[in-house]
Amino acid sequence: MSHPSARAASAGPATDVGTQPAPDAYGTGARFSLHPMTDSFIDVILGALDAADTDGLTLTTDDVSTFVRGPENRLLSYLTETIAHAGRTGVHTVAHVLLSRGCPGEVACEVADGAAYAPEVPHPTAATGLQASAHWALYPLEDGANADHMAGIYAAIENAKQLGVYSGSEHYVTRLDGDLADVLAAVVAGWLLVGADVRHVATHVTVSLNSPTGGPR
Amino acid sequence: MSHPSARAASAGPATDVGTQPAPDAYGTGARFSLHPMTDSFIDVILGALDAADTDGLTLTTDDVSTFVRGPENRLLSYLTETIAHAGRTGVHTVAHVLLSRGCPGEVACEVADGAAYAPEVPHPTAATGLQASAHWALYPLEDGANADHMAGIYAAIENAKQLGVYSGSEHYVTRLDGDLADVLAAVVAGWLLVGADVRHVATHVTVSLNSPTGGPR
Repeated sequence: MSHPSARAASAGPATDVGTQPAPDAYGTGARFSLHPMTDSFIDVILGALDAADTDGLTLTTDDVSTFVRGPENRLLSYLTETIAHAGRTGVHTVAHVLLSRGCPGEVACEVADGAAYAPEVPHPTAATGLQASAHWALYPLEDGANADHMAGIYAAIENAKQLGVYSGSEHYVTRLDGDLADVLAAVVAGWLLVGADVRHVATHVTVSLNSPTGGPR
Repeated sequence: MSHPSARAASAGPATDVGTQPAPDAYGTGARFSLHPMTDSFIDVILGALDAADTDGLTLTTDDVSTFVRGPENRLLSYLTETIAHAGRTGVHTVAHVLLSRGCPGEVACEVADGAAYAPEVPHPTAATGLQASAHWALYPLEDGANADHMAGIYAAIENAKQLGVYSGSEHYVTRLDGDLADVLAAVVAGWLLVGADVRHVATHVTVSLNSPTGGPR
């Protein structure tokens, strides 16, 4: 599979990278969980968490999920590396990833005033060789008379098509199939394409690897 | 644990149940996945899906998740029953649930015109005896000058406190701990409390059972 640059399909950043606020200030981060369906799940999870490069990231793991704070390109690399490590065990593994930006606090955050920011869309990381099937949801959370949720969502879906991972619309989600690196890159790209115009954007993706019952359609 | 009625804390339905649109027309449904972390995961998943009462529901399962269409009280019963069945095996099992209303189509749906509708908040089902730990996110998706996302979210969190399952705010999510039936009831209640005023509302919850590393804080 070719790896066209996500940047080529970008709607353009809303701001220069140089003026990008720090991840802490802007609330840029991820929450994810790994579910290896094996009796030795603890070894697979801990092995994956230990193997990945955490440079530039702040991590907190509890009994439900792992919180990761950091810049978007590092989030993409870290998530790809961690989930790939679990997938390379050959075990049927599902990862659930939540990415959020623009809301530094908690679920009931008051969105801070200010313009929307998004850096350039990062390139997909090198192919992992792991085939992923995913269900993806994208939530632009904008109040105001000028809100136009759909424009960003359509751009994000179009971008997934250009990356070659779009495989259909389902109820509530878009289905993505392809190399794990490309699937996660499309999710991050969509989140940033919407984030160029909308300050608070969340996205959720459920990624399945090594499924005994599925595969790309 | 007591089971106070979620209805008592309801902000009140926006409409009578009698005028509630059909789940198909309003897009009322769920998408969920079960992740039993055992070598025999297929048996646990299929056993759970086979055991639950599907009366009044339409189900479609693919290799990533299961789509369920139906009225809110049946969704709550079905999800509680299915996830509890998997949990009763004693296996560490994580369920991820997405509930959506007000958007009959896919991720890029055009939200149909019309008022917001929500039925009465269903009572929690009988206690399952299973302790659940959960991370919950709630997304009111409303365009327009009168949008006020926070009012509904605060009502939903306050309702979770009254149900006795709120245990703290985390980055991007609210943490819930308690009997599985009460945790899922709080999620459905919050979705409906927001849904009384906002047409398109999605909510995601990751529920962990039998974790070897956690438990309520």
